[in-house]
Amino acid sequence: MITVDDATELATSALTATGVPDTRARRTAELVVLADVWGIASHGLMRLPYYLSRLSAGGLRATADLTVVRDTGPVVAFDGNDGLGHWQLAEAAEVATRRADQYGLAAVSVGRSSHCGALGLYATPGIRHDLLTLVFSTGPAVMAAPGTATPLLSTSPIAAGIPGGPRPVIVDLATSAVARGKIAARARAGEALPPGWAVDANGAPTTDAHEALAGMLAPLGGAKGFALAFLVEALTGAAIGPSLATDVPDMFDHDHDPDPQQIGHLVVTINPRLLDVDGQAPQRMARLAANVEAAGGRVPGSNRTMPWDLDGGQSVPVADELVAELRSWSCGTLPNRHQRSNLHPTAVREERST
Amino acid sequence: MITVDDATELATSALTATGVPDTRARRTAELVVLADVWGIASHGLMRLPYYLSRLSAGGLRATADLTVVRDTGPVVAFDGNDGLGHWQLAEAAEVATRRADQYGLAAVSVGRSSHCGALGLYATPGIRHDLLTLVFSTGPAVMAAPGTATPLLSTSPIAAGIPGGPRPVIVDLATSAVARGKIAARARAGEALPPGWAVDANGAPTTDAHEALAGMLAPLGGAKGFALAFLVEALTGAAIGPSLATDVPDMFDHDHDPDPQQIGHLVVTINPRLLDVDGQAPQRMARLAANVEAAGGRVPGSNRTMPWDLDGGQSVPVADELVAELRSWSCGTLPNRHQRSNLHPTAVREERST
Repeated sequence: MITVDDATELATSALTATGVPDTRARRTAELVVLADVWGIASHGLMRLPYYLSRLSAGGLRATADLTVVRDTGPVVAFDGNDGLGHWQLAEAAEVATRRADQYGLAAVSVGRSSHCGALGLYATPGIRHDLLTLVFSTGPAVMAAPGTATPLLSTSPIAAGIPGGPRPVIVDLATSAVARGKIAARARAGEALPPGWAVDANGAPTTDAHEALAGMLAPLGGAKGFALAFLVEALTGAAIGPSLATDVPDMFDHDHDPDPQQIGHLVVTINPRLLDVDGQAPQRMARLAANVEAAGGRVPGSNRTMPWDLDGGQSVPVADELVAELRSWSCGTLPNRHQRSNLHPTAVREERST
Repeated sequence: MITVDDATELATSALTATGVPDTRARRTAELVVLADVWGIASHGLMRLPYYLSRLSAGGLRATADLTVVRDTGPVVAFDGNDGLGHWQLAEAAEVATRRADQYGLAAVSVGRSSHCGALGLYATPGIRHDLLTLVFSTGPAVMAAPGTATPLLSTSPIAAGIPGGPRPVIVDLATSAVARGKIAARARAGEALPPGWAVDANGAPTTDAHEALAGMLAPLGGAKGFALAFLVEALTGAAIGPSLATDVPDMFDHDHDPDPQQIGHLVVTINPRLLDVDGQAPQRMARLAANVEAAGGRVPGSNRTMPWDLDGGQSVPVADELVAELRSWSCGTLPNRHQRSNLHPTAVREERST
């Protein structure tokens, strides 16, 4: 357990030690720590050593800039030049809010970027501006088409920010049935998987957790999830590029540390006040949330602390071992391959709310 | 079996007989028939008697105009004034393509409208303009939050058009696990449901098809599907309005024929050439589709005939009974309540590709 402020300092100095400029390192650190605060440990500090390792090996360029490829006003395309996805997508999301404030809606792409952590993080600038936000990204191929055995699509995540209710809503979900971490947890516990979670290496449905880990994730609800994932890949990998999911190296395989991921991200922001037929949208949003709660349900993703409400003194659960590892990174003493990565982000059991 | 041209004539004259102006009747008829051509019979001609019944009773206003509530250039909000969803959303989609051609992207809402049939129909104008298109709509509440028993959200459909591949891709899916028609078909066949399709009237998961029909649809993949459905409802029912799903009358209940549905629809169009980091997006889209096919998979929604490629002489499977019913509508002889609606759209077994 350390505080948010201490965790942010620690992550910032580990990133600056690998050459990331201070402002960008701090912004990235804040996003990584916020994922931990949100309970998404697999995308929190536990993931940082993998970024640091890639920064050292050149698969992430510490000094990469975000350069403008195209700017029409409501549409901006950035080239990430193989930099860290976190600060790059955060910057893109900020630009998208300013442009939507000006034009009513905006789309901002970041091509040739890298893993950005929890996608819902990038909905918070839109929420601050009272904008509807949609965020899409891609990653390494881990899902096959139903009935086939070749990994083609990433978990194809979708995130959204919905302002206007009693609390901001952040929807954040992979279009795979479950995260790989849930399968790893079942494997460790020696438990079988429910049907529909995964397929084996031949593409056949399996409830054996070990076969599933050697196989692929199943798309959410079968063909529908695959169609959604295909849409996300079309919006990111294909439309933005330059990598399709099938080209993106796995960041957990250190042999690929020198290979850039070249991931495409997309943010779309819309001013909902412009869509409203009768000026009653805020009341309807409040009623929608109230209806869910009155029925005994949970409004999805409404329990997340917004960055501007974060208490720097609050505790973040972080293993001592990880703190020690990050300290050695921040001192410029790189852990060797056998010391690092004992804490594998896909092996964490977490309850992530969509 | 009748031809596309004959089916379109028949549907057009049935609609004009209830007072719908000719151009709008024809446009609506073309969309309804295209749903049949696409194999989505539940949203094809079989659904038309329900629209006609609502037009006669006043729940649909035959002469409703589409009026501009707001127009900022890239964002347009329309009021549908309780008119037919089909021609209204088609017009909105056309406006969205023209505005995206001009501004790079666009969002067009239609508030106070009505059921629009198969949502994927409204992705075709964007495909013709080489635009990425996202379409969202709402409808009567048929899904509860996981673990609860109050219907709160509609099937919350999402459609998308993806140009640029070897064939246009239209993704079109409800965020419920399955359509109600699939449950009805199992009930008729006396078969049990797979787990995850539905809940009973108390919100408990059920594999009994009859309990499911008296209960609710389950969201696609549980909590994730509910989160997606909530997002769609936020984008349509809440942001556009004026009805939330919980306010939308069921169009299969003739007691509600006089009650307007007041549904909100949203179309977002984006010029993908503006997002592209390296000018290689068309090649990547072709490669993505080729990868799926090389693996033995099916590119979702790539088997749909675009309206401009439709052969008016091709056959549409329509029951003689339905043709007779539509003929009597087109002659102004309204079938009485006991004659009509033997062909219930939710009772059709269809293989709908997402």
